[in-house]
Amino acid sequence: MALFDLPLEKLRAYRSTAPEPSGFDPFWSQTLAEARGHDLDAVFTPVRTGLATLDTYDVTFSGFGGHRVKGWLVLPAGTAEPLPLLVEFIGYGGGRGLAHTHLLWASAGFAHFVMDTRGQGGGWSTGDTEDPVGSTPASPGFLTRGIEDPQDFYYRRVFTDAVRAVEAARSHPLTDSARTAVTGISQGGGITLAVAGLVPDLVAVAPDVPFLCDFPRAATLTDALPYREIGRYLSVHRDRRERVFETLSYFDGVHFAARATAPALFSTALEDDVCPPSTVFAAYNAYAGHGKHIEVYDFNGHDGGGPFQQVSQLRWFAERLAEDS
Amino acid sequence: MALFDLPLEKLRAYRSTAPEPSGFDPFWSQTLAEARGHDLDAVFTPVRTGLATLDTYDVTFSGFGGHRVKGWLVLPAGTAEPLPLLVEFIGYGGGRGLAHTHLLWASAGFAHFVMDTRGQGGGWSTGDTEDPVGSTPASPGFLTRGIEDPQDFYYRRVFTDAVRAVEAARSHPLTDSARTAVTGISQGGGITLAVAGLVPDLVAVAPDVPFLCDFPRAATLTDALPYREIGRYLSVHRDRRERVFETLSYFDGVHFAARATAPALFSTALEDDVCPPSTVFAAYNAYAGHGKHIEVYDFNGHDGGGPFQQVSQLRWFAERLAEDS
Amino acid sequence: MALFDLPLEKLRAYRSTAPEPSGFDPFWSQTLAEARGHDLDAVFTPVRTGLATLDTYDVTFSGFGGHRVKGWLVLPAGTAEPLPLLVEFIGYGGGRGLAHTHLLWASAGFAHFVMDTRGQGGGWSTGDTEDPVGSTPASPGFLTRGIEDPQDFYYRRVFTDAVRAVEAARSHPLTDSARTAVTGISQGGGITLAVAGLVPDLVAVAPDVPFLCDFPRAATLTDALPYREIGRYLSVHRDRRERVFETLSYFDGVHFAARATAPALFSTALEDDVCPPSTVFAAYNAYAGHGKHIEVYDFNGHDGGGPFQQVSQLRWFAERLAEDS
Amino acid sequence: MALFDLPLEKLRAYRSTAPEPSGFDPFWSQTLAEARGHDLDAVFTPVRTGLATLDTYDVTFSGFGGHRVKGWLVLPAGTAEPLPLLVEFIGYGGGRGLAHTHLLWASAGFAHFVMDTRGQGGGWSTGDTEDPVGSTPASPGFLTRGIEDPQDFYYRRVFTDAVRAVEAARSHPLTDSARTAVTGISQGGGITLAVAGLVPDLVAVAPDVPFLCDFPRAATLTDALPYREIGRYLSVHRDRRERVFETLSYFDGVHFAARATAPALFSTALEDDVCPPSTVFAAYNAYAGHGKHIEVYDFNGHDGGGPFQQVSQLRWFAERLAEDS
Amino acid sequence: MALFDLPLEKLRAYRSTAPEPSGFDPFWSQTLAEARGHDLDAVFTPVRTGLATLDTYDVTFSGFGGHRVKGWLVLPAGTAEPLPLLVEFIGYGGGRGLAHTHLLWASAGFAHFVMDTRGQGGGWSTGDTEDPVGSTPASPGFLTRGIEDPQDFYYRRVFTDAVRAVEAARSHPLTDSARTAVTGISQGGGITLAVAGLVPDLVAVAPDVPFLCDFPRAATLTDALPYREIGRYLSVHRDRRERVFETLSYFDGVHFAARATAPALFSTALEDDVCPPSTVFAAYNAYAGHGKHIEVYDFNGHDGGGPFQQVSQLRWFAERLAEDS
Amino acid sequence: MALFDLPLEKLRAYRSTAPEPSGFDPFWSQTLAEARGHDLDAVFTPVRTGLATLDTYDVTFSGFGGHRVKGWLVLPAGTAEPLPLLVEFIGYGGGRGLAHTHLLWASAGFAHFVMDTRGQGGGWSTGDTEDPVGSTPASPGFLTRGIEDPQDFYYRRVFTDAVRAVEAARSHPLTDSARTAVTGISQGGGITLAVAGLVPDLVAVAPDVPFLCDFPRAATLTDALPYREIGRYLSVHRDRRERVFETLSYFDGVHFAARATAPALFSTALEDDVCPPSTVFAAYNAYAGHGKHIEVYDFNGHDGGGPFQQVSQLRWFAERLAEDS
Repeated sequence: MALFDLPLEKLRAYRSTAPEPSGFDPFWSQTLAEARGHDLDAVFTPVRTGLATLDTYDVTFSGFGGHRVKGWLVLPAGTAEPLPLLVEFIGYGGGRGLAHTHLLWASAGFAHFVMDTRGQGGGWSTGDTEDPVGSTPASPGFLTRGIEDPQDFYYRRVFTDAVRAVEAARSHPLTDSARTAVTGISQGGGITLAVAGLVPDLVAVAPDVPFLCDFPRAATLTDALPYREIGRYLSVHRDRRERVFETLSYFDGVHFAARATAPALFSTALEDDVCPPSTVFAAYNAYAGHGKHIEVYDFNGHDGGGPFQQVSQLRWFAERLAEDS
Repeated sequence: MALFDLPLEKLRAYRSTAPEPSGFDPFWSQTLAEARGHDLDAVFTPVRTGLATLDTYDVTFSGFGGHRVKGWLVLPAGTAEPLPLLVEFIGYGGGRGLAHTHLLWASAGFAHFVMDTRGQGGGWSTGDTEDPVGSTPASPGFLTRGIEDPQDFYYRRVFTDAVRAVEAARSHPLTDSARTAVTGISQGGGITLAVAGLVPDLVAVAPDVPFLCDFPRAATLTDALPYREIGRYLSVHRDRRERVFETLSYFDGVHFAARATAPALFSTALEDDVCPPSTVFAAYNAYAGHGKHIEVYDFNGHDGGGPFQQVSQLRWFAERLAEDS
Repeated sequence: MALFDLPLEKLRAYRSTAPEPSGFDPFWSQTLAEARGHDLDAVFTPVRTGLATLDTYDVTFSGFGGHRVKGWLVLPAGTAEPLPLLVEFIGYGGGRGLAHTHLLWASAGFAHFVMDTRGQGGGWSTGDTEDPVGSTPASPGFLTRGIEDPQDFYYRRVFTDAVRAVEAARSHPLTDSARTAVTGISQGGGITLAVAGLVPDLVAVAPDVPFLCDFPRAATLTDALPYREIGRYLSVHRDRRERVFETLSYFDGVHFAARATAPALFSTALEDDVCPPSTVFAAYNAYAGHGKHIEVYDFNGHDGGGPFQQVSQLRWFAERLAEDS
Repeated sequence: MALFDLPLEKLRAYRSTAPEPSGFDPFWSQTLAEARGHDLDAVFTPVRTGLATLDTYDVTFSGFGGHRVKGWLVLPAGTAEPLPLLVEFIGYGGGRGLAHTHLLWASAGFAHFVMDTRGQGGGWSTGDTEDPVGSTPASPGFLTRGIEDPQDFYYRRVFTDAVRAVEAARSHPLTDSARTAVTGISQGGGITLAVAGLVPDLVAVAPDVPFLCDFPRAATLTDALPYREIGRYLSVHRDRRERVFETLSYFDGVHFAARATAPALFSTALEDDVCPPSTVFAAYNAYAGHGKHIEVYDFNGHDGGGPFQQVSQLRWFAERLAEDS
Repeated sequence: MALFDLPLEKLRAYRSTAPEPSGFDPFWSQTLAEARGHDLDAVFTPVRTGLATLDTYDVTFSGFGGHRVKGWLVLPAGTAEPLPLLVEFIGYGGGRGLAHTHLLWASAGFAHFVMDTRGQGGGWSTGDTEDPVGSTPASPGFLTRGIEDPQDFYYRRVFTDAVRAVEAARSHPLTDSARTAVTGISQGGGITLAVAGLVPDLVAVAPDVPFLCDFPRAATLTDALPYREIGRYLSVHRDRRERVFETLSYFDGVHFAARATAPALFSTALEDDVCPPSTVFAAYNAYAGHGKHIEVYDFNGHDGGGPFQQVSQLRWFAERLAEDS
Repeated sequence: MALFDLPLEKLRAYRSTAPEPSGFDPFWSQTLAEARGHDLDAVFTPVRTGLATLDTYDVTFSGFGGHRVKGWLVLPAGTAEPLPLLVEFIGYGGGRGLAHTHLLWASAGFAHFVMDTRGQGGGWSTGDTEDPVGSTPASPGFLTRGIEDPQDFYYRRVFTDAVRAVEAARSHPLTDSARTAVTGISQGGGITLAVAGLVPDLVAVAPDVPFLCDFPRAATLTDALPYREIGRYLSVHRDRRERVFETLSYFDGVHFAARATAPALFSTALEDDVCPPSTVFAAYNAYAGHGKHIEVYDFNGHDGGGPFQQVSQLRWFAERLAEDS
């Protein structure tokens, strides 16, 4: 994929024009308050994975609407003292996968919590969490479920689950709440940004090639799924454009970024047509936390930095999550 | 698309090997009984379409779980006596569309009822019916929603809606219940077959290039969506194969066909890779109603007979639905 | 398809630079005069379609060169008084189709005339009209037939047929010549514009996503057929560029639009790569009739407004074609 | 393209089931008689190509209907005695091209005559011959023009042109009529077979990957154009199947092959989905001339043997066309 | 991808017809002897990866021709006693990647050795090993490099490297030579089979969806790369078919399988068009080691069993490599 | 392919920003000096092609590293006096092909020398020259072989071969060294430019749609191979960007063009996405030879001018290579 978005020097200056709704903060404070009205009830059950160096727990906690959400907690074998905590969110279409597949962050010495994404898991890795909420007519995928009303929108439930996932992970005795980081790739990066804007006391935020940013631009800039689900929906429901973008304005990573406070390590790729670099820079340039950096991969698409970004993150998390940082 | 399925002479003899579960009949009688526990409450509201020769009503009735389902009823303008009734189901991904778009069957002198398909309408025509039931992880689309349990499977709700739609249409004073036909293309044809097996007193059944037939063959014969959703799901959830096909066995058009009693006019196309001809013949060859015929289109894909099939249907419905037939 | 053409605000100001040949008007007046030298000989034969609310006539009339051209005339059943007349032209590759397939406009209370497009009908709907004129070497399709000389160009014959089709339709006793509208989608929209520039006393002109406009831009802006036929021809006949565009300049919808006088309702779609929005706006912005409006569909391709545009047209035609308008 | 047709051992035994119409021979004798009713009037005009070793003539002669058809005659520079004659026909969509592009066969010492294909030349090489005959509705391309009647079918004109081209070439004083060969690739190979069946005194026939053979099989075996034009036409005109194959039966290379008498060198490629090997073997196995051979290329598609087949032909023509052969 | 290969019951009985050259064993014994003429010189250098639970070494050893080949050795942190050894080979196009990316097998308690594939690493993961040997003309990729002579063929060097990699890994003091297993996916699986046939004292062999098996069938059954490189080469070098398959016969996994002695766990996927299941079963059915099993994934392509196969392997290796097995 | 690069008026003014390394000239003078340290040893062996008008010689000479490189020399049959010499280089992936396939330039009266491209010939025409030099990891294809060091880069060897090919051709007694031209299409055009910059006494240089120009722009402007090989390599080796472009800077046609002195006839096509027109104009606008011209084909892709460009070249070479020019 050749370059198709703005050149790098313009990306560095790009500001999204996505409008922020006046009710953004109340919408989210009420949403979280409702969710917290349900008992978190985080349950950690050890599982046998056949791994010698890591201990893994099957996790269940109550997310949006009190619905039970799954996750994995992975720790270095025999951990006895609280470890810095890394909460990870998953890319679009995948679920938490099998228990033995989350190796990197616990091998690096962190308590690693992976949240399952409700209803997802039919695309590329198995999922175990039901989304018990139905939907008005929607395009195939998740991005237009309930898109005609912020209250009904699918990501209202997911972002709420994510905030509760951080709380669930922190509730485990071997995690150190004071040293909590969030990270994820693509949709996982979008959720990461939402959590960065909704959870005040994080110490590190690392969204890679994040999705769910700068919807008005994303919806018309790329043919690639999943952003294109918006266009597909509106190509049928031709009279719902305003309503749809009104809904999306409550979920735009740009607005969450503007509320974030933690240091951040972003990444983007200049040939990424799934999450175009301008939509990532829209969030990055709006990001309010002090101490932010973005890795730019020149010749990559949505694969982004891959193992090179992991090297950057290994170093950066080690610094950020060191006990005295 | 060149020929890829069995040659015609083998199609005419082909019998599906899809096993029928022993609990098939109880499953459906209980399901329908539950749905009938909710008041049908069919409401017909006239709408202005700008058409001079046709009268159109916006319909709402209670389907599965008592959920409110939408539809259109279209009659020749000024109809004063009950007319023969044609109930139509919609293809995959589409909804009931706008009110003025259903012209043919009422212009031909029938009472034409179009059922909206719950949750659908984001693909190619607008829909207005919510599916308020959530789902375990599923592939994009509808064919794997709740696929791990017959009780939860999406088409349990849709087929039930369809039976109730016939009841709703018949409840209108200008429809003649004794002369009721069902029809539909693709998914609409699959729903038609389900209704043919579940509603005992129909006088004509006309499934075109029906979907939802002979799942074990369909799932491995074609790469085309939506049948491929099954393969996509199982390519991730590799350990769920038996459970998935067990669920599908309660919804196979082949088994509904074996319970049908009304005369039928099928159609299929030899180059149809979406609903391959062998899967259609699987249902046709199993169809138990007396007086059945199938139109075979040699060089068409999933477009099937199109307007040529409409000509066949106009003639056949006129015969089947004449007052004294 | 993401946005690829000018942004909407620039589209609204865009003016085509396609040059108008000085001989444009004489070319067309001579062409029409020649055609009118043949007896129109419009013949209307009732056909049985099985429809109860509509009467349909098989029409034959003499078009360009006196060649016999087919059409359908559809009226509300039992029409006794002249009705406002809507003449429709067909999209690229299709013919007039089967008799029962033209339902909307007569159901809406108009006399609806559908012209077959000579030689077409092998693409998506059946045609019944021969184009008895051969061609110098051309690319597959119709857009380069005879393209090296305006006298030989295929659309010289088609546009002439279209003017004669209006005359044929008006010759029927149940059509009201004083209330004549023309409409069509894609190629039908391009023909609509030609007729709008060649027939002086129309009362409504409604081209949807029109083809055959602003050839110099269209030929280099899009890879999609049929505009790309021009590029394919010139990629072989590399030395004919000037001659080809000279020919096309006699057929550009932009120049016909500049001669139109009737009110118009256009439509375009911002993601339409078949008839890109700038080529549609080129005609719209040049359109000289008073009272013009354009519907813009943001997330559609060449499907344009579809049923939504029909709703707009139902309303607009009702106003424009009311007896006292 | 992997193997998709019969395995080689079955190809060698394959016999087409395409029925031969009883009127085949009268149809062609009448057609040729009519054409010969027009004066051949072969005109040879020297052209300057810039080549030193070859002399080239621009040729015009009267083909079907007396229509003027173009060609090139290329001779080794300074030829003084009649040379063996090689008449070549062109592949689908191309014309005779520019004068300097036909180098091989005259460089090999033959008189090389290239026939332009009427109406073609918009696809990949320039053409200069009009097809002045129009058509009933047809799919894009040439294969369905006039396909509903053998009298009107496009290839009736082309095959007649080809017979007349041989006569025109032989009329030149520097060609030796007694040593005439015909050859061509793809469509050129199909025309070669027709000429082999219609011209009695050829000494060599060399069709490469010939098109226009075994229509009933070809039409359903491959998705590739141009055979697929038949299916496209019939996917619209669903009721014309019998008529279309009746027409094609007068033009099937299998039937021409059965009438041929000259030795032949065929070629085919096992991965050729444009002209599948079984359709080529259908003609080869039916070929009645004594002394036939077929080169089989295992891993090629429609490119066939390319320069390797030229090597075979250089050797074979040299033998067949030697003065005393 | 729908099913395209033999049905499962025929796969279980399928035997390759690929002929084994009489010189197979001498060819390989001489090749290995030559390689062993160079000092192995395995060098292990610790690297910092940022991982806490694993120790990683950068490895260099002498492979074919004494060329220096790279690898990684990964051990559980602080390993003090020799561990069972798992040697892994990499898929086509990739290299050994970055040091921190090999986590699974050492986390499971094994000494995990990853061999870099010479010259590869430009496709999807970085490589660090030069292939200092040039090539006669070849298609893009590696499969036709030197394909006209077994002595020059690329995989002669790679398979030799692989045997030497096992020797290098075994030379490390913390690996237990008596408990050595080999594994790999795709090309890695093909190399695994070669090693299984060339190294006599392995205790477990686990090829997943192996490449490089049953060349005569693979070359004509699938369009997918890399097998298709053979067809591409032969579509140009049309006269080299015998020579090419003669060369490949020295490298066919089927023949290595017939020489293997260790227990094996294979995997294949029925929709795998890259390494079709019949080519995998060709090797499996020929596999001579006692105690073999194959996992079959019904709805997967070349992704095969993915994490599900890892679960099978974790269990199977644990059994096979237990100290007293 | 629609227009995607700069409009023509901007192309005419476009200047590449590719930086020229300070060591460019020493690098090449040392490279050529090394090559000339090997005996050229040009051997010309007559071959039988079956052609009557042309004489062909199989050529072998020593190129880079003294490696033996193949070629063809084609002369008009019976040539007795030295002829003007045209040295041609081949497009990407192809080899020198079979002996009878090079007809045009000798037929036009020139001594025509065709150089084989080392290692190539697996793509579309046969090759006979080994590249005996291996490579560090590279993407499939040739453009990234040895790309991390100018000394190792594949084109260092090819460009050197090309200079030596000119010397070899000139060494034949029937070629007139004082009238030497170079030409080639695509990669052949890129090599032509290199030779134009490295050989001082040429009289005509004719690169068609040349490859290997303006790498920094080409690498990000187009998705098409082979330029995209650069991006593929860097998408894996994400940390090598500077090193890669540093290497390429020694091989950029823009810098060779700036050193050229002979008159030149370029060609480019505005829809060429393989060698985009801006990259061709980058070289053209930098070309320092006096008397340059560029043919621009408006509606062509990488096929460029094809036979039309040959006509231009026939005329231009005739002028440039006339004895007294």
